[in-house]
Amino acid sequence: MLQSKLIGDTKKEWPSEAVIKSHGLLLKGGYIKQMASGIYTLMPLAKKVVAKIENIIREEMNKIGAQEILMPLVATRKLWDIAGRYESVGSELLRFKDRTDTEMVLSMTHEEATVFTLLNEGATYTKYPFTVYQIQTKFRDEARPRAGLIRVREFTMKDAYSFHTSKESLDEEYDKFFNAYMNIYKRVGIPEVIPVYSDTGMMGGSGAHEYMLLCDAGEDKIVVCNNCNYSANMEVAYTDDIEAFSKVEENQEKIYTKDITTIDELQQTLNIDKRGIGKAVIYERLDTNETIIVFIRADRDVNETKLRNLLKIDDEDLVPKKQEENSSIVYGFVGPIGIDAKNTTVVYDISLKNEKSLVFGANEKDYHIKGVSMSRDLKDVTYHDVSKILESDACPICNKHELKISNGIEVGNIFKLGSKYTKAFNMTYLDENGKISTPIMGCYGIGVGRLMASIVEARATDKAMNWPVSIAPFDIHICAIDYTKSQDIKEKADEIYSKLQELGYDVLLDDRNKSAGVKFADSDLVGAPVRVVVSPRNIESNMFEIKVQGKEEATLVKEDELYEYIKDSINRLKEEVEA
Amino acid sequence: MLQSKLIGDTKKEWPSEAVIKSHGLLLKGGYIKQMASGIYTLMPLAKKVVAKIENIIREEMNKIGAQEILMPLVATRKLWDIAGRYESVGSELLRFKDRTDTEMVLSMTHEEATVFTLLNEGATYTKYPFTVYQIQTKFRDEARPRAGLIRVREFTMKDAYSFHTSKESLDEEYDKFFNAYMNIYKRVGIPEVIPVYSDTGMMGGSGAHEYMLLCDAGEDKIVVCNNCNYSANMEVAYTDDIEAFSKVEENQEKIYTKDITTIDELQQTLNIDKRGIGKAVIYERLDTNETIIVFIRADRDVNETKLRNLLKIDDEDLVPKKQEENSSIVYGFVGPIGIDAKNTTVVYDISLKNEKSLVFGANEKDYHIKGVSMSRDLKDVTYHDVSKILESDACPICNKHELKISNGIEVGNIFKLGSKYTKAFNMTYLDENGKISTPIMGCYGIGVGRLMASIVEARATDKAMNWPVSIAPFDIHICAIDYTKSQDIKEKADEIYSKLQELGYDVLLDDRNKSAGVKFADSDLVGAPVRVVVSPRNIESNMFEIKVQGKEEATLVKEDELYEYIKDSINRLKEEVEA
Repeated sequence: MLQSKLIGDTKKEWPSEAVIKSHGLLLKGGYIKQMASGIYTLMPLAKKVVAKIENIIREEMNKIGAQEILMPLVATRKLWDIAGRYESVGSELLRFKDRTDTEMVLSMTHEEATVFTLLNEGATYTKYPFTVYQIQTKFRDEARPRAGLIRVREFTMKDAYSFHTSKESLDEEYDKFFNAYMNIYKRVGIPEVIPVYSDTGMMGGSGAHEYMLLCDAGEDKIVVCNNCNYSANMEVAYTDDIEAFSKVEENQEKIYTKDITTIDELQQTLNIDKRGIGKAVIYERLDTNETIIVFIRADRDVNETKLRNLLKIDDEDLVPKKQEENSSIVYGFVGPIGIDAKNTTVVYDISLKNEKSLVFGANEKDYHIKGVSMSRDLKDVTYHDVSKILESDACPICNKHELKISNGIEVGNIFKLGSKYTKAFNMTYLDENGKISTPIMGCYGIGVGRLMASIVEARATDKAMNWPVSIAPFDIHICAIDYTKSQDIKEKADEIYSKLQELGYDVLLDDRNKSAGVKFADSDLVGAPVRVVVSPRNIESNMFEIKVQGKEEATLVKEDELYEYIKDSINRLKEEVEA
Repeated sequence: MLQSKLIGDTKKEWPSEAVIKSHGLLLKGGYIKQMASGIYTLMPLAKKVVAKIENIIREEMNKIGAQEILMPLVATRKLWDIAGRYESVGSELLRFKDRTDTEMVLSMTHEEATVFTLLNEGATYTKYPFTVYQIQTKFRDEARPRAGLIRVREFTMKDAYSFHTSKESLDEEYDKFFNAYMNIYKRVGIPEVIPVYSDTGMMGGSGAHEYMLLCDAGEDKIVVCNNCNYSANMEVAYTDDIEAFSKVEENQEKIYTKDITTIDELQQTLNIDKRGIGKAVIYERLDTNETIIVFIRADRDVNETKLRNLLKIDDEDLVPKKQEENSSIVYGFVGPIGIDAKNTTVVYDISLKNEKSLVFGANEKDYHIKGVSMSRDLKDVTYHDVSKILESDACPICNKHELKISNGIEVGNIFKLGSKYTKAFNMTYLDENGKISTPIMGCYGIGVGRLMASIVEARATDKAMNWPVSIAPFDIHICAIDYTKSQDIKEKADEIYSKLQELGYDVLLDDRNKSAGVKFADSDLVGAPVRVVVSPRNIESNMFEIKVQGKEEATLVKEDELYEYIKDSINRLKEEVEA
């Protein structure tokens, strides 16, 4: 198309609201327009990219036999009550009433809707397994939408749901999705995405992976072992082997530590390593008003996801406890010895397990206790893994100390869901022996807009989009310098434009009355894999400058070699992506 | 695909909730599943049909240079306040609050969103005209969702918006859409759709067409002239020439009509034609609490759309007035002579204009007045067209009396919107002379799900879908009788299935363990344009029964002619649709 007609004006300046690259470039390039907090319009360039991404996803889903359906965004409270999520999900589930005062929600996921839709589809075992998917609008009322398309409220998602009569069948389907997802990331130009073990949380599933693009803009923390490639979300990453720091038992001794209420102060005052101190982290759970005290070695932090899973606490119900007047808790001096545990859950992290001589609070103002031996002084304690892994920890798989913690963007997830929803909806089938059984499910998601933004994070520079040929908004961008001033340029550019379109390429021709500088800057933002420059400098010798993605330098090509050169270049780029 | 795997079980019985054909067949055939009132899931068959319809729409939109975007469903009240529609639209606009108590809506249309999105796109006249479209989810909280996909609450719509610097440019674009829409209806298999003049209502536009599929299931009333092809929605249909019934003036005479409060009784008692009576129709407008009395000839009914437009009353604010105690209105005896018009708007319909001797109520219990001459007795009256056209009326274009009123389903609309929204948003551009001007807009809609249902209404029988080849869920349906019992049948059916897929067709193979009767009934519901029957009766002679859409009889074809025959048949069907 002619660039003078393209909707989506570019901006000269970096948008001040954008902190990360994809947010800034998508705004600057006229790809997106913010309509409200976390709510965006996709402009023509973005819509073209997204449509191509969706088609790749669709192809990979169809290839593994998933059938496309379309479920509604708006659902009744009644539907969401059946598995209890109307109550259990926090305020990210948007609830409202329709004109008849019926309670409704905007669906943020479709487990309930899928089971309801397919309730009578799998009446006998012969129909199984089956899988449906949709590419559809979701709404999630995020407390803090951020980073452009990375964390939004309204978004398009590919979500798939599979139904099975056995764990083996679910495992098989899970593997199919595992591979289909890797294909998708490769085909959209980010083969570096890695699958990591992830939290199955309150969903009650039996296994889950998240697909992570490692990059600074990510808000997830990912642990990767450089030796064996073990990778996991921090939420679930673990180590089997925390070496004890205090290996020799000592006698308990109460010490006077006036006003020493922090680990740092204690460490300095006593001149010991943090590993020699046990700390108390104090939470409140809002659903029961109970206090939760976690004892953990002071060099480590509490992994709240692990803690929530252990105690079965919803996301929003676990909060740090604020210091209260007249509390039985002696803030700054809390320890396991002699603690008043009324209406309190006490959790001991595994990091303490083998310690023979720790410093803990004495539950008395201005006092600590030295020489606490866990095995000697706290005999009946059960230990749980509720701590965040450290880079210095041993890999749980290969035991090497080569863990690295990176930021990552989650660009997809797959999940062995089990029978939570089929049970709740009383979905059943007759098995081979005529027995009534409950199918089990898997669920599989990819956020389309976030995937596009992640591709930008991975591939773009601060100025240039660098779309892979598989999803670029245009295959070829013709930058015609002086198009509006030089008849020669116009004629030649028009001719090349027509010929390339006849060859089946999607071509953008910059026919605008703009300077070369503006044209090149905008061309970087369009990010087509091939750029053809028609310029006064080279037109007399009938030469054209062609810049192909991935090549450092532009090449001057004669007119009679132009089309062959472009064809070869694009084919090679396609092979690279699809290989 | 294999039919044993297809999600969307067919039902044996006609669904009891379905009154119209499309609703019943789509449910019976496993195309749709109701999730809530007016909210449906599209199952795989429907999703396939809808995807093909959307692609046809997309092609026709791209062909006329419209650029695809994607705007969000959720919008802020703030956006909807700018042109006043947050207040003016009734409760079909679903309003709610998000987690931060911000007032939001579910968009039922996107004029506001489009103007906001493109506010800075058309800064100078050189950028114009430009047009965007989207194929996107909408929500309209209908008071009475009905008839399956005909009137729903959540739906997918193609909506387009064009921007212009002159009326001529808008007219040109309007014509492009006019033709593109006719192409779309032809390509999806309902070339009989007609454009009719329609109401521009409160939108303030200068011209509008609706595209109507005439059929009994329609809820709109359409007037078509069999002589000149004038066609219009009843809401706007008019006649220029209502012949006066009472042509001779008589003296006024008050007559005693005890308890005669209806037109029928009056007509019988006085033994006169309805045309000799003037009636009063009494409304209340809820926004101002005013009473509205419409005087109209008794053979005609009030067209409430015309009345609302005349008095600028919102849809929901005009209601029939209930009879009240102690009212100054003498119900059953209301007439224009001596009426107490306090806090009352009186409207005279044009049907009265030339009448010389009418019977009217006397505004006194049990009395009417005979011999009312409009020109003599009600001199200062202005007449307005607020009546429904009758089949007996003269066509406003050719003046022939050949009008016919039919039911129709609206399957699209195009609308010259003017500057209502660009003005409200202060969208401006610099014209050729550097003057700041306001662009004008057109808007253009097609509901995708309703279009699919309308195609069923137009083309299906009570048992068979009969999809056009352009949008059928499968090109070819192989009904293999005894597939699970006869190895010969299975091998041959599998072979044909593979070969047809290799030829590029989308093929459904009925591999189920079902009777021939069930297979044929289900095949009718799938509605593929070509059906191949592999049956024990014919397989020994290597013959296959092929039923091609539009042909009365099936044909027996030998194996070596099979593929050529199918190819020719499908090509011919394609030509018929695309011609």
